[in-house]
Amino acid sequence: MEDYEAILDRVLGILTTGQDPTKNPTSEIKPTVRPVTSSSAIPVGLSNRHVHLSDQAVAKLFGTGHRLTPMKDLSQPGQYACQECVTLCGPKGVIEKVRVLGPTRSETQVEILQGDTFKLGVKGTIRLSGDLTDTAGITLVGPKGSLELEKGVIVAQRHIHMLPQDAERFNVRNGEIVSIKISGIRGGTLDNVAIRVDEKAGLECHIDTEEGNAFGLTPKSTVEIIK
Amino acid sequence: MEDYEAILDRVLGILTTGQDPTKNPTSEIKPTVRPVTSSSAIPVGLSNRHVHLSDQAVAKLFGTGHRLTPMKDLSQPGQYACQECVTLCGPKGVIEKVRVLGPTRSETQVEILQGDTFKLGVKGTIRLSGDLTDTAGITLVGPKGSLELEKGVIVAQRHIHMLPQDAERFNVRNGEIVSIKISGIRGGTLDNVAIRVDEKAGLECHIDTEEGNAFGLTPKSTVEIIK
Repeated sequence: MEDYEAILDRVLGILTTGQDPTKNPTSEIKPTVRPVTSSSAIPVGLSNRHVHLSDQAVAKLFGTGHRLTPMKDLSQPGQYACQECVTLCGPKGVIEKVRVLGPTRSETQVEILQGDTFKLGVKGTIRLSGDLTDTAGITLVGPKGSLELEKGVIVAQRHIHMLPQDAERFNVRNGEIVSIKISGIRGGTLDNVAIRVDEKAGLECHIDTEEGNAFGLTPKSTVEIIK
Repeated sequence: MEDYEAILDRVLGILTTGQDPTKNPTSEIKPTVRPVTSSSAIPVGLSNRHVHLSDQAVAKLFGTGHRLTPMKDLSQPGQYACQECVTLCGPKGVIEKVRVLGPTRSETQVEILQGDTFKLGVKGTIRLSGDLTDTAGITLVGPKGSLELEKGVIVAQRHIHMLPQDAERFNVRNGEIVSIKISGIRGGTLDNVAIRVDEKAGLECHIDTEEGNAFGLTPKSTVEIIK
């Protein structure tokens, strides 16, 4: 194993999934056996404000037939940041250059920070992604048009993505609400963190940049579940 | 007591100091007797980025002989926001319209948010006000000149101002480090909160806007000490 990239992949695989990616899990790890690692550290993913667009919204804002241009893969498989940005316009102010994330979704969703709600003059309901009932609307502006949304503005509820084997290891189930502990000079705990278990989801705790800054976190930080 | 302002003063006095301001404390409350209220709620004061200037810094940035113009009293007695603003200039970016707080101090101090440290490219050491040893420098720009500081940039360590009778009531002492509990949908706890006891200090927990937003706080929010 002279290939450093392969070694790195192996180490990262063990750290993030608790399994050695160079071993065949069906032969090496039986369903009843826990993953080899016992680390309780969960990597942090820090989210800034962003939007998810429907196909119709892409057509309205960027022109009929426009396809989003992937720029950078995100940690969750299949998700990517796009070259495209939009402007958010509320009754009290605007925020320019807000990143579009792909791929498109069935409903357009605008995820902002708590501080943005004051600047825009728009209510930001604390919600998990996709739960848009009774959320505020906002106007999006792109290079080819604008779009007045009746709903879709949320401040993301903090959550932890994990694979089923992580859920077993941490003794939690999909939808469960836990607290997380953060160490350091700005340490503390955050309550009301939702567990999201998915076959394709890498282990990562998603919080926004205001939450991250309040706790002095960096992209290398980790958190721990407390129940 | 038909005067509503007097009634409001009395209610606020009781809420913030635990004492009725219309009563004479020397005759009504003996030193060994606790204040009448048993509420554990501590009002929150949310601080945005700001600067404290020395007399020399005021002269350099706003011109010789310039005196700061008070605009709005702050909750801590004798402190006020000024009409004057400055621009913060770091190696990676600038932040305009940063409020000056008065009165002037012996040393110039720049209090920024964790998020500002990335934008400016300046390190923000977590410190209590006045503790500026080994902190980063920055350049301040005003209408009449600029000033390159060798040190003075901090991200404020969260702290609770209180009167000696509050300290007795909460069973804490000056300089003690406690945690605070915050309720609500974004609730949790913040560790490493310093107690600052002063004869003139109104009861208030000072945290910055990123910490406040992370916990969904408003100027009407309260926190609770946990030890």
